[in-house]
Amino acid sequence: MNKQIIHDRIETLRQTLTAQDLTAIIVPSADPHLSEYLPEYWQARLWLSGFTGSVGTLVVTADFAGLWTDSRYWVHAADQLQDTGISLEKLAPGQPNHIDWLAEHLVEGDSVAVDGNVLSIAEQDRLLNAFDAHEITLITERDVLAEIWEDRPALPDAALYSHDASFVAQSATSKLAAVRAGMAEAGATHHLLSSLDDIAWLTNLRGADVDYNPVFLAHMLISEDSATLFVENSKVSTEIANHLDASGITLADYESVQEALGTLTPEDLLLLDPNKVAVGTLSKMADDVGFIEQMAPSTLLKSVKSDADIDHVREAMRQDGAALCEFFSTFEQRLEAGERLSELDVDSMLIEVRSQQPHYVSPSFPTIAGFNENGALPHYRATPEKFSYLDVNEGEGGLLLIDSGAQYQNGTTDITRVVGIGAVNAEHKRDFTTVLKAHIALARAHFPDGIASPLIDAICRAPLWQAQMDYGHGTGHGVGYFLNVHEGPQVIAYSASTPKERAMKVGMISSNEPGLYREGKWGIRIENLVINTPVGNPTETEFGDFLHFETITYCPIDTRLIEPSLLDQVETDWLNQYHRQVFAELKDRVDGAALEWLTERTQAI
Amino acid sequence: MNKQIIHDRIETLRQTLTAQDLTAIIVPSADPHLSEYLPEYWQARLWLSGFTGSVGTLVVTADFAGLWTDSRYWVHAADQLQDTGISLEKLAPGQPNHIDWLAEHLVEGDSVAVDGNVLSIAEQDRLLNAFDAHEITLITERDVLAEIWEDRPALPDAALYSHDASFVAQSATSKLAAVRAGMAEAGATHHLLSSLDDIAWLTNLRGADVDYNPVFLAHMLISEDSATLFVENSKVSTEIANHLDASGITLADYESVQEALGTLTPEDLLLLDPNKVAVGTLSKMADDVGFIEQMAPSTLLKSVKSDADIDHVREAMRQDGAALCEFFSTFEQRLEAGERLSELDVDSMLIEVRSQQPHYVSPSFPTIAGFNENGALPHYRATPEKFSYLDVNEGEGGLLLIDSGAQYQNGTTDITRVVGIGAVNAEHKRDFTTVLKAHIALARAHFPDGIASPLIDAICRAPLWQAQMDYGHGTGHGVGYFLNVHEGPQVIAYSASTPKERAMKVGMISSNEPGLYREGKWGIRIENLVINTPVGNPTETEFGDFLHFETITYCPIDTRLIEPSLLDQVETDWLNQYHRQVFAELKDRVDGAALEWLTERTQAI
Repeated sequence: MNKQIIHDRIETLRQTLTAQDLTAIIVPSADPHLSEYLPEYWQARLWLSGFTGSVGTLVVTADFAGLWTDSRYWVHAADQLQDTGISLEKLAPGQPNHIDWLAEHLVEGDSVAVDGNVLSIAEQDRLLNAFDAHEITLITERDVLAEIWEDRPALPDAALYSHDASFVAQSATSKLAAVRAGMAEAGATHHLLSSLDDIAWLTNLRGADVDYNPVFLAHMLISEDSATLFVENSKVSTEIANHLDASGITLADYESVQEALGTLTPEDLLLLDPNKVAVGTLSKMADDVGFIEQMAPSTLLKSVKSDADIDHVREAMRQDGAALCEFFSTFEQRLEAGERLSELDVDSMLIEVRSQQPHYVSPSFPTIAGFNENGALPHYRATPEKFSYLDVNEGEGGLLLIDSGAQYQNGTTDITRVVGIGAVNAEHKRDFTTVLKAHIALARAHFPDGIASPLIDAICRAPLWQAQMDYGHGTGHGVGYFLNVHEGPQVIAYSASTPKERAMKVGMISSNEPGLYREGKWGIRIENLVINTPVGNPTETEFGDFLHFETITYCPIDTRLIEPSLLDQVETDWLNQYHRQVFAELKDRVDGAALEWLTERTQAI
Repeated sequence: MNKQIIHDRIETLRQTLTAQDLTAIIVPSADPHLSEYLPEYWQARLWLSGFTGSVGTLVVTADFAGLWTDSRYWVHAADQLQDTGISLEKLAPGQPNHIDWLAEHLVEGDSVAVDGNVLSIAEQDRLLNAFDAHEITLITERDVLAEIWEDRPALPDAALYSHDASFVAQSATSKLAAVRAGMAEAGATHHLLSSLDDIAWLTNLRGADVDYNPVFLAHMLISEDSATLFVENSKVSTEIANHLDASGITLADYESVQEALGTLTPEDLLLLDPNKVAVGTLSKMADDVGFIEQMAPSTLLKSVKSDADIDHVREAMRQDGAALCEFFSTFEQRLEAGERLSELDVDSMLIEVRSQQPHYVSPSFPTIAGFNENGALPHYRATPEKFSYLDVNEGEGGLLLIDSGAQYQNGTTDITRVVGIGAVNAEHKRDFTTVLKAHIALARAHFPDGIASPLIDAICRAPLWQAQMDYGHGTGHGVGYFLNVHEGPQVIAYSASTPKERAMKVGMISSNEPGLYREGKWGIRIENLVINTPVGNPTETEFGDFLHFETITYCPIDTRLIEPSLLDQVETDWLNQYHRQVFAELKDRVDGAALEWLTERTQAI
């Protein structure tokens, strides 16, 4: 993007701040649903700063403009912000964030604007906590950018559709009853849902308003005897409307959620998740309506997959595994044939093979295909403007990291594999094998039923820590069922807090993805999806119930990158058993070169 | 204790509640210093209920009396509360505690009394949180028991003494400067310390006001230019008074701390740890004095031992290890000679051998010598009224768990070993070896410098979890330097929260004590003390700094209880290396039978 345009936009914004008597503005990466992927309409931070990373917070004052983002994006952001007048502010544990900066640099009487429509209640609490002591005023009722953002994109208008009935085990009516039971337990009369994955799960509907996540823009307000879905009318077919009506769900206009909340009285008690509801959504609600701030009941309900769901997901995993066999055999053949391939080719080939599978809908996130130093950037994305060819010098080798996944109507996939290109060396193998040891440590771990998910992260990292290695991202995230590839409440990351809401429950699907990143050299990550499963035939019964992970991603782990002497017998046995299973699950789904590839790559070491 | 006496005391208390128009009273196990070991003067809960466990909360209303205590004490408490009219209320995760009970059973307008002198600020916050919504009044200004507790014991009057200067590396003046630096960082003008270990550390003084912990009853109030020690005048010799004066510390009467806090003004900002200061201590302080609630600077400072301290502790550990060789060789000889020994003999023999070591002061906690089913009670204590002989039937075997430690002027020790009595069987060995695997897993782990201590617990438990086993207590506690055997801030327990105050720092001493308890059968625990140490000669430098544990407890782990096939090579190597080190550290300190015993028990497996 032209850096002068960014300069000009920031200057125009500064004039508006002055005109409106504001000291500063905060522009977060958020929308009224606190989603991971934002419709363009809410990509104000990108429009203002030119920074394309998915997470970052821009702060602008009369004489300062800075963007806070975490280590995943530092290299990227430094490049994109150069010569824009916006400084890169590195967000890191123990370092001041944008709130600290504002509290330090602003003075009594100053005013800070942030659009309440893209500010969660929890984040507002953090801002007020910091600002109140310094008598700085927070203004959330204005969308300052509305005045200056010409050609702002429209809201998305993709039609809603039903999640294929063959893959739906629980009716919307039944799910609604379960949510109401959760409301009753909390003592709530009403419940507001703004999170799009919760709403899609609850209604058994899907949409295409954002990339990768099959969701649609909506809010829901649920009481003991009514449920209203606030969604743009034009997106809803008669058939969908009838389905909703039959499920006891009334339709209302997307924009009318504020008015509906305005009708609540002091006798009502509204349950909401403060991390998942925007301040602006409550703008017309009376001050004396009571709140219960906790995780939405649906967040836990949808994380615990039923046996029927899991059967479908296993099938989606077999489809995905078969597609990957096709991809890898073709990819390696083309490389061997001397063809020059790039990271972008990897992406397009993956989409090609997956889109031929039944029930395919879309990628589940942007493919990360990072060769050598690009792989060392955990959230790297090759673009037509900037990508690498998979070239190595004669006698040398490199590592290609491929993190990709798909949305199928019968499941959401997410897998990372690393491929050696050319002659890999002992350093490559040592790093890869150490990450594999970490992956296996978690894959075969037992842990108490109900333990807070962050607490088991150390089991995964222990082999890497032993080698004085570590990685800067979480080890595992929850995964939806034909829904978001990143869904809570569980998260296997020791940096996360450990509330009881993060307890591990049977039926949750998570990723197991330890990694290692050598800046300027290569990145390694080995990722499978795993299901929380009770240990079979318990041998001990007096110490409580234990869970373990069933690995449900079926795709060979490249044994040519392994240094066998670094694996102990238990680890080697796990790997060989995994490869026997991968072969058994996929052998009847591929043929020709793909079957040959599968057979060769699942040989025992 | 006569159960009728308890009956009568509760009835008298009920009359007082009625007379004072109170609905309920809470009697916690606490004192104005929130100590682990209480002077008899503050053992009101014991006096009222007859329950001798160290932790429990009594609630009495007109028609209810219940005592909440955790699983360690259920068997014990059920026995002691029987026929007293007091019900045992089992405190467990997810179960209602006494606060929940009161909130549920009391109604608007009711009043609950608790003596503010034994109520921490943090606990008061929890009570107010629960009671405010129900309009229940909390009354903390009265000591209701004062009226009815005849023959209440006096406060202890042991003289203060100086920590032997040869073992003190940092002067009180220097420590005070470090605390003031912490106050300045927090922005505080004043700092109140009520925790006795912090005060003993800061002044380099010790006392004998309670059992096991060499501390004295006192408060301290520190400002930028003054420091006052509130302590009973009769306990302070002229020499100690001079030492304090030279360190810039003024003496004042123990009871005058409230008045001193009453002189603070709204311009002052008082730093205190809400978990370590009682509400009653602040009773005369003006409402408009500001607080900073955080961990006391001294809590972290004293947890990080200097190199000089650590050298002394290593020497104390050698002394303790030599004493244990004497104990074990004599103990085994006497058993072999056919002598009938009891758990009480173990206790007295241990005190005998330790008291012969230089710089010995006292046991560091009550010895736990639990044979077979008694060992399955993690906090069992044999008493002259109730103990077991170490008897086994011909051809059978049993396990004796011995957890003991001592206070030496040059260090505090705490060690648990398990001894086989008679013919141990395969089940004993499997359990013992699995606990040993857990111990070794933590002993040899590397972990990131600064990680919150609870997060590494899973590394220790993983081998037990893998065998579907677990234990109900924490894996490790911090240990003082000739101070409390239980000292924070670090705690290796996955049930604990993970604030940054619990970060692992170089120089902290902790216990490593996984266990396994089979109710009615036996208990196993293997405990060594360990020091947080940087990994030597880092092989990787780009992933941050890593710590590991130096094990500093020198005493053989009984290899006759090990099933070698359950250990992998790494574990076997660790054990053999540990035993080589134990032999090297102790061989010149013992002779005769003890040296023979040491030599035999440190043979490689």
